[in-house]
Amino acid sequence: GKPTTPAATAEFSRENLESVLKRRFFYAPAFELYGGVSGLYDYGPPGCSFQANVIDIWRKHFVLEEDMLEVDTTMLTPYEVLKTSGHVDKFSDWMCKDPKSGEIFRADHLVEEVLEARLKGDKEARGVKTEDVEEEDADKKKRKKKVKEIKAVKLEDNVVAEYESVLAQIDGYSGEQLGELMVKYDIKNPATNDPLEPPRAFNLMFETAIGPSGQLKGYLRPETAQGQFLNFNKLYDFNNLKMPFASAAIGKSFRNEISPRAGLLRVREFLMAEIEHFVDPENKKHERFDEVKDIKLTFLPKEVQQSGSTQVTVTTVGEAVSSGLVDNETLGYFLARIYLFLTKIGVDPTRLRFRQHMANEMAHYAADCWDAELQTSYGWIECVGCADRSAYDLTVHSNKTKQKLVVKEKLAEPQVVSQYEIELEKKKFGPKFRKDAPVVEKFLMELSQEELIKYEAELSAAGAIKFTIPELATGEIELDSSFIKIALQTKTVHVREYTPNVIEPSFGIGRIIYSIFEHSFYSRPEAVERGVLSFPPIVAPTKVLLVPLSNNEELQPIVKTISRVLRKEQIPFKVDDSGASIGKRYARNDELGTPFGVTIDFESVKDGSVTLRERDSTKQVRGAVEDVIKAIKEITYEGISWEEGTKNLQPFETKVEDDE
Amino acid sequence: GKPTTPAATAEFSRENLESVLKRRFFYAPAFELYGGVSGLYDYGPPGCSFQANVIDIWRKHFVLEEDMLEVDTTMLTPYEVLKTSGHVDKFSDWMCKDPKSGEIFRADHLVEEVLEARLKGDKEARGVKTEDVEEEDADKKKRKKKVKEIKAVKLEDNVVAEYESVLAQIDGYSGEQLGELMVKYDIKNPATNDPLEPPRAFNLMFETAIGPSGQLKGYLRPETAQGQFLNFNKLYDFNNLKMPFASAAIGKSFRNEISPRAGLLRVREFLMAEIEHFVDPENKKHERFDEVKDIKLTFLPKEVQQSGSTQVTVTTVGEAVSSGLVDNETLGYFLARIYLFLTKIGVDPTRLRFRQHMANEMAHYAADCWDAELQTSYGWIECVGCADRSAYDLTVHSNKTKQKLVVKEKLAEPQVVSQYEIELEKKKFGPKFRKDAPVVEKFLMELSQEELIKYEAELSAAGAIKFTIPELATGEIELDSSFIKIALQTKTVHVREYTPNVIEPSFGIGRIIYSIFEHSFYSRPEAVERGVLSFPPIVAPTKVLLVPLSNNEELQPIVKTISRVLRKEQIPFKVDDSGASIGKRYARNDELGTPFGVTIDFESVKDGSVTLRERDSTKQVRGAVEDVIKAIKEITYEGISWEEGTKNLQPFETKVEDDE
Repeated sequence: GKPTTPAATAEFSRENLESVLKRRFFYAPAFELYGGVSGLYDYGPPGCSFQANVIDIWRKHFVLEEDMLEVDTTMLTPYEVLKTSGHVDKFSDWMCKDPKSGEIFRADHLVEEVLEARLKGDKEARGVKTEDVEEEDADKKKRKKKVKEIKAVKLEDNVVAEYESVLAQIDGYSGEQLGELMVKYDIKNPATNDPLEPPRAFNLMFETAIGPSGQLKGYLRPETAQGQFLNFNKLYDFNNLKMPFASAAIGKSFRNEISPRAGLLRVREFLMAEIEHFVDPENKKHERFDEVKDIKLTFLPKEVQQSGSTQVTVTTVGEAVSSGLVDNETLGYFLARIYLFLTKIGVDPTRLRFRQHMANEMAHYAADCWDAELQTSYGWIECVGCADRSAYDLTVHSNKTKQKLVVKEKLAEPQVVSQYEIELEKKKFGPKFRKDAPVVEKFLMELSQEELIKYEAELSAAGAIKFTIPELATGEIELDSSFIKIALQTKTVHVREYTPNVIEPSFGIGRIIYSIFEHSFYSRPEAVERGVLSFPPIVAPTKVLLVPLSNNEELQPIVKTISRVLRKEQIPFKVDDSGASIGKRYARNDELGTPFGVTIDFESVKDGSVTLRERDSTKQVRGAVEDVIKAIKEITYEGISWEEGTKNLQPFETKVEDDE
Repeated sequence: GKPTTPAATAEFSRENLESVLKRRFFYAPAFELYGGVSGLYDYGPPGCSFQANVIDIWRKHFVLEEDMLEVDTTMLTPYEVLKTSGHVDKFSDWMCKDPKSGEIFRADHLVEEVLEARLKGDKEARGVKTEDVEEEDADKKKRKKKVKEIKAVKLEDNVVAEYESVLAQIDGYSGEQLGELMVKYDIKNPATNDPLEPPRAFNLMFETAIGPSGQLKGYLRPETAQGQFLNFNKLYDFNNLKMPFASAAIGKSFRNEISPRAGLLRVREFLMAEIEHFVDPENKKHERFDEVKDIKLTFLPKEVQQSGSTQVTVTTVGEAVSSGLVDNETLGYFLARIYLFLTKIGVDPTRLRFRQHMANEMAHYAADCWDAELQTSYGWIECVGCADRSAYDLTVHSNKTKQKLVVKEKLAEPQVVSQYEIELEKKKFGPKFRKDAPVVEKFLMELSQEELIKYEAELSAAGAIKFTIPELATGEIELDSSFIKIALQTKTVHVREYTPNVIEPSFGIGRIIYSIFEHSFYSRPEAVERGVLSFPPIVAPTKVLLVPLSNNEELQPIVKTISRVLRKEQIPFKVDDSGASIGKRYARNDELGTPFGVTIDFESVKDGSVTLRERDSTKQVRGAVEDVIKAIKEITYEGISWEEGTKNLQPFETKVEDDE
């Protein structure tokens, strides 16, 4: 990997990194030819290959290793499903329109940047030097540009305190509260000072119409999770009715961001990999917890954040679970597995922390949530969410569709349970309700325990109950105890029926990839303009660059032979037989993050030996083609170290690195 | 694979296949809990894994093997792009609405099924026995259900001839023509006989709005191709300006079908894998053509179809190209590579043909097109299109955006070329056109050779030319030869500039997968109710089933040991330690298409030997665990035959197959 001593690398420059990523077509704004569409990016060949490798490792690390049930469900999703899941009502941000210019602002971002600008102006007025402090949020840096000039205006001390308190709670305000803040602090369009309309909710889902009549409203899914929940019964069945088990899905999801910025970190179409681990709410132990309990993680608990601090705790997963910092073994197991995955693909473990959500920032479905955050030049970025969605989703879908989504567990010993039951005097229903009788009966039979308890009391007290049944034209009916009886019944049950809870590790692949780009990027002090992407070999887009020393025809046959072997071994490689100097060719390749270079020279023609160069150390060794390829294979796919993998090859000294 | 002698397998039954696919959750209608949405399907674990394997092989067979530049571009696509590509105007089907019921019909399908029903009725009336003839089109069988009763009504001989002629040309009618046919033949809603509205175009793209203002209209892409074309310059640059080269993309595309049927064969959201091979229009030779020239393919040329026949020609690709049947080497090369890919993943080569498109069915962008069609119980299904899109797409995008999408080739020798050039008397433009002068100048400088030739003649003849310039308020201007001169100029050029042509192999992954399901499915004559899916090991969702003979605890350690080895070797496997009989467990597994079974018995505990069973032959061999795993690995991933792979293992006789 990347050299670790400070002296070995020049200071990180986002500008340099972005220039490399663009020049080597890792990704680019989509539709650039047409002026681009913000929040949409295309991956070019190295980015696409990097992404495919990440997905391949993810699938092996999670799906294969843990025997998960992977599904591929549709992105088009009908209205009813997302209405039930809560996304139609709650999956939105607050936006404010400038009625004059038509410009639209995201309300929370606007309040934040205006108050921050004023605080900065206050500091300037007070003569306090404002440094470019590290950003905590991905979007701030770019967003700040909206507030063009910082005016040096001193604020009252109590105003400063108020602003700071507002900023600390910025993620927790409702639309109405944001509107009040805008009035109170006179927040307008920062560019023109024109007044804005009050915030209104903007749903972040892309809407479309399915079918030719246009009557079936649908959305592009905002997450892959719903498709997994809806298939719960089929998956449980496929798993031979065994619990716990996990499903998994890899696929694109969509969010119609109000004003996306920050490159790959906030986009409108993105690749997710999500796991839904279905577990008994009364037993969240994990069979393989022992395998990970000694792994040390960095935690940022909610209490610490609520006290205004970001002081982390480093401890083992075993400790975190036994102390109650992490709620249960299953959650702890996944945090450790997420850690192992991220570090395997190139995340710097010192720039990874697990931050617990505070109550006011939790998604509408979540009971608890830990984010794996990666530190980048944009601040700490949420890259993997690990939420306990409790029984929320299965319950709402089951209630809506009147279909059970439950686990039936045979009890080791029968249990005696008491519960309220309703009994209908069926022969009286037909004469009274005629064709509506089945609807009334169905409604009564589906009453929950909670409802039965309430109605039992009402029936005892008043002798009759009024029911509201929306399916009926009359709407409301009244029944007395000659129609229904409600009583506590005791019976022996052999099966326990429960709605499983869901632990959901959810990976934003694009954000992870961008963070790895930053964690991997460095410049050699002797050549700052040359970037190097020090990807672990397993995720590198190309594993080997073949570099014939010159264009001489004599070298062609051996290049072809090595190409054939690499292709057969399915090791991705490129040939660079351009006329450029060896040094230039390696520099170009450093930018693509290719871990190995194989140089073919005139010696190779004679004795079949070639030189193998390692990207980060620029160390070189020499040996027979088959031994060099064996070393590449072992280091790349079997996790062997460079020293171990090349111990039978000969050290080789050369000056090609300086050859420019 | 599947036994080939007719006696060895029972007759194919689609009903049985569908029952297996559903029971084993290969796929299922999406949102079934909510009643389903037609044309949307979810893949369950075995279907998803099968799909991932197909994609993995595709990527190795095409992208890696041929050094293609894979990209991942967005599905959301702005209106302008698809307007330019022609999809907004031409990517539609014709639909007719029944104003009374609101029901919507696809016009060509309706005409077809009504006329077919009448012809069938005529045959019945004439006493001709109508057999269930093999269907040529994927949708017909189910669509026919709309025409509920076939009335035995005799038709005039000339009417029969007319109907048959209409049916032969059904794919070529415009909406207006379909409307005329409906009037002429009195075609109404078959269920109610109510009149229908005339056909109108229904665009098959899903529409949505990008961003909060709702003003940026977008679509879900109907193909991945446009994203590749728009990145042409970046890809050409990434390829170090070398030609020819290919880009590739794997991803979902969308079609809002009017009334989707036929399961996975006609869906609204589907996975595509597309290649855009950019090639010099004057040189469509292919470097690796020699490697495939002796492969024999089955061709159905357009002339044969136009003569009303479906007689195929079997010949080598080399022959087909040299005789002109297939236009060029690149096209021929890809047809052969498509053949190799399809047969590798389980397509029956005797049920694969390459059908050339007739002129009237070609997509709006295509110059020539061959479909790889697979025979299924729904008829011959287009699964891979291989179109020559000529320079169509690059040209239209370049014209629209005024950005060059061309290749610049350094000429071996400078060439002297003559071309018309326009010269402006610039100092006269300012005074005459004032602020419009730059617009007028730009317009004139961008005139094409064809336009210059025409205007040169006009200018010579009339001394002045009228130009229509939409960007101007006045719209039209007139210029005489004091403003412009147009003349033939001769100059020496060192670079040839051209717009590459595109050869596009485009794979419908879902259709291929469904066809392989049919090609792989059989029932053993001794147990017809038991289905077997004889997938090649390389694509099978699970490679090995571990079957401990009983639940006895003694067998657990060896099951765990083998599991650990298989996991380390990344060979997907399942353990079936249910109490069911060995025979039942294997039967269940046959339905999942798992090629190998490994039985662990009490002998295994003693000497570490296990039994390996092959799915199709049900042959069994016995040996040490490591030798058995080695055999599985070689047969699955290295294409070794069963006989070769197991030659060092001992034949083993047992009666477990009958053990039910």
